[in-house]
Amino acid sequence: MKNIIKYGVPALAATAIASPAFAQEAAADAVGGGTAYILNTLLFLMGGFLVMWMAAGFAMLEAGLVRAKNTSTQCLKNIGLYSIAGLMFWVIGYNIAYPGFDGPGLFGMAGTIYPMQGVGEADLETGYSVASDWFFQMVFCATTASIVSGTLAERIKIVPFFIFVTVLTGIIYPVVVSWEWGGGYLDAAWGFSDFAGSTLVHSTGGWAALVGALILGPRLGRYGADGSINVFPGTNIPLATLGTFILWLGWFGFNGASQLAMGTVGDVSDVSKIFVNTNMAAAAGVVVAIIATQLRYGKADVTMALNGALAGLVAITAEPLAPTVGHSIIIGAVGGLLPVIFVPILDKLKIDDVVGAIPVHLVAGIWGTLIVPWTGDATFVGQLVGVLLTMVWVSVASGIVWFILKATIGLRPSAEVETAGLDIHEIGVEAYPGLANQN
Amino acid sequence: MKNIIKYGVPALAATAIASPAFAQEAAADAVGGGTAYILNTLLFLMGGFLVMWMAAGFAMLEAGLVRAKNTSTQCLKNIGLYSIAGLMFWVIGYNIAYPGFDGPGLFGMAGTIYPMQGVGEADLETGYSVASDWFFQMVFCATTASIVSGTLAERIKIVPFFIFVTVLTGIIYPVVVSWEWGGGYLDAAWGFSDFAGSTLVHSTGGWAALVGALILGPRLGRYGADGSINVFPGTNIPLATLGTFILWLGWFGFNGASQLAMGTVGDVSDVSKIFVNTNMAAAAGVVVAIIATQLRYGKADVTMALNGALAGLVAITAEPLAPTVGHSIIIGAVGGLLPVIFVPILDKLKIDDVVGAIPVHLVAGIWGTLIVPWTGDATFVGQLVGVLLTMVWVSVASGIVWFILKATIGLRPSAEVETAGLDIHEIGVEAYPGLANQN
Amino acid sequence: MKNIIKYGVPALAATAIASPAFAQEAAADAVGGGTAYILNTLLFLMGGFLVMWMAAGFAMLEAGLVRAKNTSTQCLKNIGLYSIAGLMFWVIGYNIAYPGFDGPGLFGMAGTIYPMQGVGEADLETGYSVASDWFFQMVFCATTASIVSGTLAERIKIVPFFIFVTVLTGIIYPVVVSWEWGGGYLDAAWGFSDFAGSTLVHSTGGWAALVGALILGPRLGRYGADGSINVFPGTNIPLATLGTFILWLGWFGFNGASQLAMGTVGDVSDVSKIFVNTNMAAAAGVVVAIIATQLRYGKADVTMALNGALAGLVAITAEPLAPTVGHSIIIGAVGGLLPVIFVPILDKLKIDDVVGAIPVHLVAGIWGTLIVPWTGDATFVGQLVGVLLTMVWVSVASGIVWFILKATIGLRPSAEVETAGLDIHEIGVEAYPGLANQN
Repeated sequence: MKNIIKYGVPALAATAIASPAFAQEAAADAVGGGTAYILNTLLFLMGGFLVMWMAAGFAMLEAGLVRAKNTSTQCLKNIGLYSIAGLMFWVIGYNIAYPGFDGPGLFGMAGTIYPMQGVGEADLETGYSVASDWFFQMVFCATTASIVSGTLAERIKIVPFFIFVTVLTGIIYPVVVSWEWGGGYLDAAWGFSDFAGSTLVHSTGGWAALVGALILGPRLGRYGADGSINVFPGTNIPLATLGTFILWLGWFGFNGASQLAMGTVGDVSDVSKIFVNTNMAAAAGVVVAIIATQLRYGKADVTMALNGALAGLVAITAEPLAPTVGHSIIIGAVGGLLPVIFVPILDKLKIDDVVGAIPVHLVAGIWGTLIVPWTGDATFVGQLVGVLLTMVWVSVASGIVWFILKATIGLRPSAEVETAGLDIHEIGVEAYPGLANQN
Repeated sequence: MKNIIKYGVPALAATAIASPAFAQEAAADAVGGGTAYILNTLLFLMGGFLVMWMAAGFAMLEAGLVRAKNTSTQCLKNIGLYSIAGLMFWVIGYNIAYPGFDGPGLFGMAGTIYPMQGVGEADLETGYSVASDWFFQMVFCATTASIVSGTLAERIKIVPFFIFVTVLTGIIYPVVVSWEWGGGYLDAAWGFSDFAGSTLVHSTGGWAALVGALILGPRLGRYGADGSINVFPGTNIPLATLGTFILWLGWFGFNGASQLAMGTVGDVSDVSKIFVNTNMAAAAGVVVAIIATQLRYGKADVTMALNGALAGLVAITAEPLAPTVGHSIIIGAVGGLLPVIFVPILDKLKIDDVVGAIPVHLVAGIWGTLIVPWTGDATFVGQLVGVLLTMVWVSVASGIVWFILKATIGLRPSAEVETAGLDIHEIGVEAYPGLANQN
Repeated sequence: MKNIIKYGVPALAATAIASPAFAQEAAADAVGGGTAYILNTLLFLMGGFLVMWMAAGFAMLEAGLVRAKNTSTQCLKNIGLYSIAGLMFWVIGYNIAYPGFDGPGLFGMAGTIYPMQGVGEADLETGYSVASDWFFQMVFCATTASIVSGTLAERIKIVPFFIFVTVLTGIIYPVVVSWEWGGGYLDAAWGFSDFAGSTLVHSTGGWAALVGALILGPRLGRYGADGSINVFPGTNIPLATLGTFILWLGWFGFNGASQLAMGTVGDVSDVSKIFVNTNMAAAAGVVVAIIATQLRYGKADVTMALNGALAGLVAITAEPLAPTVGHSIIIGAVGGLLPVIFVPILDKLKIDDVVGAIPVHLVAGIWGTLIVPWTGDATFVGQLVGVLLTMVWVSVASGIVWFILKATIGLRPSAEVETAGLDIHEIGVEAYPGLANQN
């Protein structure tokens, strides 16, 4: 994603001029400034509603992969976190994310609360409606919180979860964004490159989830004292499949609209290339996951295929424009292999990740970030610094919040509640009352 | 929603001129007439497919909140009512809705049937394709019918239900539209303001549902003779959650595209503000509903959170543009509280509303309409007249239709059929045969 | 769909000129070349993501209509086939589909692999981004494969299925496309007309499915030796309903974006008309299917209503622009009747089509293709030749592939596996473990 606060998308005057490469055809492909403004804004709105839709994707993926007795809780957590993310990104997050650094800053904050222009007015100086950009950035913030929700499912009380989400979306995530898209330390000092957020969004969510899983511990009975591993199969595979398709669809907005402009022929062509590369990385992830599980287990595990799609998508997110289609297929294929490798490793380490979010969002996010120099404009060292700094900040900040919550209101329900399922005690609404016990 | 028939969106010549506030920058932000035509039309098409998608949202919400034995019936009713609404709005509804009043009319009708331009032709005099506008208006008509479907679930035969939908979408709803968006009585005489339909769509559906519920009576066994209230929990909470997310997504089209134009920088900026306000009202509704149920019952009821989102959305629909973000949060927060308050009240009154559609669409719709003068250009008295006139017309007209149906073919299935479930007797297809009785 | 390779969409210079019919208003409705390029590309991107979403629709429709024990398999097949289609259409399919015939060719191939322009560059000579067009054409290819998946559900091993999909999407389908949209034999010699693919996409999928069903045979126990027909009801009707709504939504992209341009006021108006006609054909299909099953069986079969919608959509796909709304309703109504008639006929012939894909996609596809001359620019003989040539090619080519697979690795699992369900043996993941056997 381009840094829109610092560098801005081309202002009205500039967008009216053809890109240099086609200077001699300026008369043919020039786009007026007002038209470019509308098209840039439209890209944010379309990207925004597609990424908003990803909140439903996470909800369905997670609802499908938890057990029936915790499904209502997972539904509530997902609609709740999306709502909290929106409110917090308005109250404070956006200002932290885009503080107007004048150099390699680490922490800063702009103005007060997000303002909107009056009715009928436009933000002519930026070349797009700031409200549309705010909407687009907000849904990214919500995505980060969704990742945490999946890993920690089935064993965290909703109140501490929502409090964590409040801090994550209001402060922890926006600080990471400020370093790169806000023009801060990683961007200014290291030339760190993360087009649509393999690190900023997906690894941030992944680190917060990993630290949470370590502090929270696994679900009761998940890992036997004798070293045995008990699989708790998800209740509703079609819902998980639906969730994956929703996420795939939403990713066209996630990556495509991170071009941040479609007011020139070059920009809209780039958005098109991003669509193709994003799709092909996911497709490669699916095929590799199917082949790998078929070869390893003699069965093509559908949950691995779903995670393969998502890992391919996460991997291509750091640089979905510069690669050729061939590059994208390779980047996505490696991504799709990562859950097949890391899901068993996490189990050996007794880290209980209910939906596989850590391999998909954290591990594939790191992979996608570190491979950017292969095709894009970045250095391996710069990328590594970005990965490590994000790790340190998110782990420490999340750890502090998780520990405070654990020490005060507590994170886990009682063993009785966890065994009976959180739905009855936390929500009071069972997820599938008419199915298990036909009325 | 602007009144497009009477006032029209800016015609081609007008859209080519920058808004007065930026007159000195006219050279930079001007948009050509052909381009504005395309962009206006595109807004209708995008808004149209997003609102069409809300039909799926209602279907999933309702399918999730009824019992397993009536789920297939609910699916059929939803796809059927969307289809009937389209046909009726073409046969007669659009002409009643936009009769071309020349003053404060109450009932009128334009031309004959909806005509389309020939292939390759455009509607240059309107500044957008009339077919795209028709499509957008039609999906609003279908939304109104969806509301009724939820309240009356589990105890109405499909044939009388479909007949009612035919009258509602062909006549009752279009008459209400004609008074405001069609430039009739409420618009001309009272300056009534309802941007995207808190009253015109949601309250209209709500009144029709309320009258239907009163005439139809509650489901068997729902209210005991001893005053006890039996809760019939919904079968599939993840589906209801999915439905709510679909509706939330669709609402960006519902409210955003009700700007009716994006061929100027001012219009597309307004659409962006509407996106933000719409989202924040829903988010506030969710958070308030979660907090309220947590405080009141000690549990965060997920179905109330879902209804909180929807009530927040309904509340902001009457005026999603003029409010600041802060206003929108307050409007949505109050909206989200309404189902928490009114669902128990309806139960005390023994009005059986299966999905909570009356609190969400009718009560929150009234709230949203009456609060418009706080931020928008309307008077409280004018708004109240609009609410009351809609109440009288829709209640009386719906009541007559319901009574005629009751007196002729009957509304309810036999007690045996209702107890066994409508799916077997009315549809012949059970909804979940493989689940309750594993094959 | 226009033939974009041969005829091209209007080039930049041309799009800047108003359509002849409005020559005198050229100053008002002219659209600049750069703007037209962006809008044309945007149509492909929006159409592309809507049709991509249809992959989820097929997945949900099929997951809902199979039995619980085969649901995970169906989910895997659908996400797998979408992925394979993307990869194969890149490796070879696109080049076969658009070989650059210079006359009525039957088989040809262009260049090597699909190339994309560099970052920031545009395809000015075509008037749209070729990457966006590739994306749009690719999702059509995937749709063809989805059709086969439904018919052959519950009794085919996943490895031969995926191999078949590889050949279908890489070779069989692209060859059909080359004859019409690639400017080959059917287009050049017969003036065959198939706007968005009633024959090219839907009948191609349908023939491949029919031949597969004949070679594969019915599911065990489906047809008794005594001539009895055992119905295996689908597990999850709400999911099937959701799938149908997804497909309906996606079809606006399928048909609407097949206009291939929205850079002129005429083109965007045509897209609008296509939206209306597409919707009304589906609506008519639903209503007719409901009425027909109500009259014939005394019950309104929801699965027939869903198939009625889809058959109406398939029927209007060959020519969604030229018909009036009234024409579209008739075309869709007849389409909606076809599954009601042909589902029982297939059962009498002991052809086991799990989801009714053959009546919906093949029979209604033929109907839609043959009725084009009623409203569009085509001859009955030309249309018939197109239908027959497609039948011969797809049947023979598919048959060869199916036979080779049957003779080598085998198509069907053992009777034990089929009886136990493919999910356990092929996938290792049950679809609904928490529901049938409440944990």
